Amino acid sequence: MRIAVLGTGMVGRTLAAGLQHLGNDVAVGTRDPAATLLRDGTDGFGTWAAAHPQVVVASFAEAAAGAELVVNALSGDASAAGVGAAGIAAGTVLLDVSNPLDSSGGFPPSLFVTNTDSLAEQLQRSFPELRVVKSLHTMTAHLMTGPGQLAGGDFSTFVCGNDAAAKQLVTELLTGLGHRDVIDLGDLAGARGTEALMLIWLRLWQVLGTADFSFKVVR
Amino acid sequence: MRIAVLGTGMVGRTLAAGLQHLGNDVAVGTRDPAATLLRDGTDGFGTWAAAHPQVVVASFAEAAAGAELVVNALSGDASAAGVGAAGIAAGTVLLDVSNPLDSSGGFPPSLFVTNTDSLAEQLQRSFPELRVVKSLHTMTAHLMTGPGQLAGGDFSTFVCGNDAAAKQLVTELLTGLGHRDVIDLGDLAGARGTEALMLIWLRLWQVLGTADFSFKVVR
Repeated sequence: MRIAVLGTGMVGRTLAAGLQHLGNDVAVGTRDPAATLLRDGTDGFGTWAAAHPQVVVASFAEAAAGAELVVNALSGDASAAGVGAAGIAAGTVLLDVSNPLDSSGGFPPSLFVTNTDSLAEQLQRSFPELRVVKSLHTMTAHLMTGPGQLAGGDFSTFVCGNDAAAKQLVTELLTGLGHRDVIDLGDLAGARGTEALMLIWLRLWQVLGTADFSFKVVR
Repeated sequence: MRIAVLGTGMVGRTLAAGLQHLGNDVAVGTRDPAATLLRDGTDGFGTWAAAHPQVVVASFAEAAAGAELVVNALSGDASAAGVGAAGIAAGTVLLDVSNPLDSSGGFPPSLFVTNTDSLAEQLQRSFPELRVVKSLHTMTAHLMTGPGQLAGGDFSTFVCGNDAAAKQLVTELLTGLGHRDVIDLGDLAGARGTEALMLIWLRLWQVLGTADFSFKVVR
């Protein structure tokens, strides 16, 4: 499948590499590819891109052109602008893995939308021609593509969205990545619940001293 | 231990019975004991009270008098008034198991406080002489006192509060009830995370068709 990943941070890189590894044709989209590639050093995107030559690096719009699936791995506050700049074709599935973090008040961040609305719903309203599916944003990056790295993958992965076929496409992708317990939370308002998990996720990260944990719905 | 449980709903009844069963001296506090006891029928408090003769039924203030631990099992919007009416002695531990549900917009309810504040913190600010500990509010009532009824108790129970000794008292109570994985989330601001779990809890209740589930932090 042709996949565009918007965002060059840890989440974008991890998803791009993992999805490419599964045999997908992956392009990473960024605002200014030339400038982004110039960022080197061990943590720089240029170094990462050189180590992943099969992943194309392009502008938001170039990456999204012809993609069957676009992944929003931008920061929450950059998501609407980035998705807009990508000019994604109507009907395309947008897998939103972002979180609406507001770090303006220091650590821990709060959420800039929650409770009666969500970032996923905001994106769906802004881009009604896309089919938004929310998933994967409730765990640290390496578990998104390698869930087996934690307790053999014995935890839950949530999916929600307004379009059943789009959720099905994402669910098959998740299963392919090794997610064993994918829970369909229904329509996109389910993202109010999963995005709000960030509030306890950030606390757990502090008190456990590691991001290597995830949530399981025991039932 | 002498324990007062404020609230005569399903959560209050379950906790009162469970804590009495463990050998504690339990009084249930309600605004108007005579009127509450007159509510009969299979679901009425009078019927329940008759079946639990060892549990004292009294006014908020009578129940709280001399209690070492007061449990707030009132609805979120009734909590501040009920705790205030109880006139709880300074230094007493207040175990808050309520959720800040706002049902004014229909189902599912939203939260009347979240994100940068919590009901537990509101109560602590209103009653600075009490030692508020938040716990147990992330699961359905019968799992609070009988965690072994779900997967042998293989899920997580969160506790947070500003007073270490108060958390210790509650943690010992939880352990006595069979809670196997009690996670200390630190100070009372941790309740922002656990109260926000209601948003996904309510969704899961809808899509799973049962309240018999709980969250496990896999790590």
